[in-house]
Amino acid sequence: MSLLLAETRIQALSLVAEGCDLLDQTQLPEREVKIRITTPQEMIAAIQALVVRGAPAIGVAGGFGAVLSARLHQHQSLPVAYRAIQEDLHSLYHARPTAVNLMWAVKRFQLLLDEASWSTTMDIVTAFETLARTIEHDDIKMCQQMGHHGASLIPTGAGILTHCNTGALATAGIGTALGVVRTAFINDKTLRVFADETRPRLQGAKLTVWECLKDDIPVTLLSDNMSAWLMKQGQVDVVMVGADRIAKNGDTANKIGTYLLALAAKAHDIPFYVVAPSSTLDITLANGEAIPIEERSAREVTHFEETALSVDDSRLQVFNPAFDVTPGSLITAIITEQGIHRAPYCF
Amino acid sequence: MSLLLAETRIQALSLVAEGCDLLDQTQLPEREVKIRITTPQEMIAAIQALVVRGAPAIGVAGGFGAVLSARLHQHQSLPVAYRAIQEDLHSLYHARPTAVNLMWAVKRFQLLLDEASWSTTMDIVTAFETLARTIEHDDIKMCQQMGHHGASLIPTGAGILTHCNTGALATAGIGTALGVVRTAFINDKTLRVFADETRPRLQGAKLTVWECLKDDIPVTLLSDNMSAWLMKQGQVDVVMVGADRIAKNGDTANKIGTYLLALAAKAHDIPFYVVAPSSTLDITLANGEAIPIEERSAREVTHFEETALSVDDSRLQVFNPAFDVTPGSLITAIITEQGIHRAPYCF
Repeated sequence: MSLLLAETRIQALSLVAEGCDLLDQTQLPEREVKIRITTPQEMIAAIQALVVRGAPAIGVAGGFGAVLSARLHQHQSLPVAYRAIQEDLHSLYHARPTAVNLMWAVKRFQLLLDEASWSTTMDIVTAFETLARTIEHDDIKMCQQMGHHGASLIPTGAGILTHCNTGALATAGIGTALGVVRTAFINDKTLRVFADETRPRLQGAKLTVWECLKDDIPVTLLSDNMSAWLMKQGQVDVVMVGADRIAKNGDTANKIGTYLLALAAKAHDIPFYVVAPSSTLDITLANGEAIPIEERSAREVTHFEETALSVDDSRLQVFNPAFDVTPGSLITAIITEQGIHRAPYCF
Repeated sequence: MSLLLAETRIQALSLVAEGCDLLDQTQLPEREVKIRITTPQEMIAAIQALVVRGAPAIGVAGGFGAVLSARLHQHQSLPVAYRAIQEDLHSLYHARPTAVNLMWAVKRFQLLLDEASWSTTMDIVTAFETLARTIEHDDIKMCQQMGHHGASLIPTGAGILTHCNTGALATAGIGTALGVVRTAFINDKTLRVFADETRPRLQGAKLTVWECLKDDIPVTLLSDNMSAWLMKQGQVDVVMVGADRIAKNGDTANKIGTYLLALAAKAHDIPFYVVAPSSTLDITLANGEAIPIEERSAREVTHFEETALSVDDSRLQVFNPAFDVTPGSLITAIITEQGIHRAPYCF
């Protein structure tokens, strides 16, 4: 079957001459605000505050951060600049612990910095800009390829349940799981999307719903705890999610709640697909046990913006892991830009 | 083993000479506000707005509503009052569709009204008051009995995961599932409670956390989608929830998210207990398929109080069932005031 390729009008981040423009995702969907940052420190802060988020997007953002660092130090002598850039890359590398794409991208700049013999600091800037744009363009292309491979797995008129945001906001292109949805949708307008709201940060309610409506894809919002009941009603034909890190055996770290969703899909015999570029693979890990899981602040759970959702009491404890790990055995297939991989996985 | 009985300082509702006092649960935990209502119509509105909620509590509230009706019409002639009370009972019966305790309680007033031969309208008032207090006192006693039976199932130092609110706010006594927790806790201070926040209304974050802290029970709050990951960490020894209606075969309607939680417990081989008074049993239903599931407004999912959580767009659809049905096959035991019932269930 020849598939139409999807497009999107959304651009989460872009490198410009004066810095890097980020669509501030913490203000969506209420306000579409672009902020311009000019230093790697601002990029780290933006990554940590989820101004830019989504594993592939923060990989691209890491690259843009490397460029900002090189530009910041471009008027310094080569040894001074080299040292400063090295330090910035180190900080960028550790901005968030779970998604491996960030480390993957930053490592490419570290290798480039170390391997080349530089004549001037400006050469570093130029080389970094080229690499950053390569990573960006590769991401756009990989999204198209994942969309193409993944769309072949979606039955006509399917109800597709997704979790968190894996779209244009989470990548430089049309998205991973939502890129598959986009591709499937332009080829089959009878599809329906179900979006988990994705507590605590509500990336589903805020970002996925916004993206779907922006591209005229019918979307139904639900609280995360409703997914199994929706499946029981026969509304869900496919579950499709992204990934932040995938171990050699297919164990997949993704937004908290993914594991629970995979258990529900298994119980209802519904295919559960993970969509991610190969930069998400971490073949240094035999399985998911060693994937570090970021624990975020209690306030994300206890508050919504300035409003308290629970009791204001210092005795209250909060569990707030940002991610969980879904065993490869629960994943029907993993779709990368290279194709459709099926269990048992051995990357 | 001889168990200490638990107590609570919380009273969700009480019948007084001038009407009925309700602790307004929509204002908890920020404000502890008691509101006094005097008509059955106000009681229906309070039940629908979740000012009073929880299956056993709305059973008791139904009884108090019947008393308010009888009092309202006490100066009318017997035939006029009889007719008006009948209409009020009919409305009370239909205030919310899923929890059977409300229907069970109101039906007792309907039978009483029809079966006795009344001399004066005041006789109806007196008889209704007696029945309402009987239902209330029975509920208090049944909570103690469920607490006693259920506590025997909880291992020392257990981590107990619960969903929604099933405590003193959901009953006239110490609670159902949370009554078991209370009873277990005064006998074993090393217990820990994990409270699902329970979207969309956040009864876990708002009410269960408040109740636990009020009674000095250590509590950890989590978003609903974190439960499976918490189980995977070995933190959960027991899951304990309430019920809104239980069919003959043990299929149990309870707060949305219960079914998903039961699937997660099953996958981790963790006992999953339902705690409910026998008034929650509906043996007219062979299984859970015929249990009506209340669908509530989209706004509960799309907004938190006045703040939008998602996109303000008329094309956005919302799935918001207030309850789901957990198959009896996923329930390790059902605890009523009569004892511990184990699968296969045949009530």
